[in-house]
Amino acid sequence: MIAEFSIVPFTGEESISKYVAIVLKEVEKSGLSYKLTPMGTIVEGDVDQVFDLIKKCHKIMKGYSNRVLTRISIDDRGDDLNRMDKKVKSVMEKLNE
Amino acid sequence: MIAEFSIVPFTGEESISKYVAIVLKEVEKSGLSYKLTPMGTIVEGDVDQVFDLIKKCHKIMKGYSNRVLTRISIDDRGDDLNRMDKKVKSVMEKLNE
Amino acid sequence: MIAEFSIVPFTGEESISKYVAIVLKEVEKSGLSYKLTPMGTIVEGDVDQVFDLIKKCHKIMKGYSNRVLTRISIDDRGDDLNRMDKKVKSVMEKLNE
Amino acid sequence: MIAEFSIVPFTGEESISKYVAIVLKEVEKSGLSYKLTPMGTIVEGDVDQVFDLIKKCHKIMKGYSNRVLTRISIDDRGDDLNRMDKKVKSVMEKLNE
Repeated sequence: MIAEFSIVPFTGEESISKYVAIVLKEVEKSGLSYKLTPMGTIVEGDVDQVFDLIKKCHKIMKGYSNRVLTRISIDDRGDDLNRMDKKVKSVMEKLNE
Repeated sequence: MIAEFSIVPFTGEESISKYVAIVLKEVEKSGLSYKLTPMGTIVEGDVDQVFDLIKKCHKIMKGYSNRVLTRISIDDRGDDLNRMDKKVKSVMEKLNE
Repeated sequence: MIAEFSIVPFTGEESISKYVAIVLKEVEKSGLSYKLTPMGTIVEGDVDQVFDLIKKCHKIMKGYSNRVLTRISIDDRGDDLNRMDKKVKSVMEKLNE
Repeated sequence: MIAEFSIVPFTGEESISKYVAIVLKEVEKSGLSYKLTPMGTIVEGDVDQVFDLIKKCHKIMKGYSNRVLTRISIDDRGDDLNRMDKKVKSVMEKLNE
C-alpha cells in the first residue's frame, strides 16, 4: 500500500526541516520505496511494514518534542506493487489524451 | 495520545455507514475511549494501542473492498490522559472569557 | 456539505486552545451549524459558505503566526442537509442491529 | 502558500485517475506552480488563488459524482515564494550533513 505522512513536532521553531531529515533517515533504513514531497513523505510497502515505520518515526519525534502532530493518508489497493510511479503515470496519460 | 481516523472502502456504494459500524464494533472491543463524529472516529490510548487498533480496522475493511482509503490525524501530547474532553473544555472556557 | 478543519499556528506555544477559541468565534459569527471535537471543528453549509469561512479563519490565524498549518476534510453529498447528526445516527443504528 | 489536495468522487469505479486528470487540467489552467504526487496535487500561490482553485476543482468533481471527498493540507509560511522546491532541498541538505 501507499501512505503519505508528515510529523510535526512543537519545538517552538518555525523551521522543522531538520526533524524531517531525522524521519527520512529512518525511512531510508527501512528499505521501503519512498518519495519526499514538499508536503510529506510517501512510502510504499505492505500494511505492517508501513504502519510500523510510521509508528517508529512518530516515537522518535516524541524524543524531541512533548507534543507531536502526525498526519497519515493511506491508499491501499489490492496487491498492486510499485504503484507510486504507476499512479502518476496513469494520470499523465489521461491528461494527454 | 488522541487520534482521529476514517476508513473509506471503494465498494461502489454511496453510503458507507454500515462499514463505519463494523469499524466501530472493533473500536468498542479494544476498550479504548472513543467518540464518533460526523467526520471520523476519535480514539485515545497509548501509541501502540492506537496504531494497532487503526491497523486492525484498516485490515478488516480490506476484507470488504479491494481499495481502501484511510486518513489518520494524531495529536500526541506528553503523558496527559483523558485529553479528549479536556481539549474541548479548554477551548470552551476561553471562548467564554 | 460537511467539512472538518483544524488550524495550527506555529507560535512556539505548546497549547493552542486560545487560538482555537478565536477561530470558533468566527465560526459562530458565520451562523453555520458546527461541532467542536477534540481534533477539529466540523461545519456544515454550502460549498461557498464553508470554503469562505475556512479561508477567513486561516487568514485570521496568519495574523498571530508567520507559519500556519491548516488541515481540511470535506464530505460533500448531494443536497442533503443536516447531515452532521444524520451521519452519526445512521452508524449508531447499524451498530445496534 | 503551499497546499496539497486530493478529490475523490464516489462513482463506483475503483480507478479514479481520469478524474484526477480532469482536476489537473484545471490546475494547469490556473497558471499556479504545481506538482502531481502519488497521493495528491500540490499547488503554490497566494491564499485566495489556492482556495479558489481547490473550490473550483471540488465543484467540477461534483458534476461527475453525487458524493465527493476532498482532503486539503496547507502549509502557509510568511511571504516566502517558490517554497515547494526549497522545502525538499532544505531537508535533503540536512540529510546529507
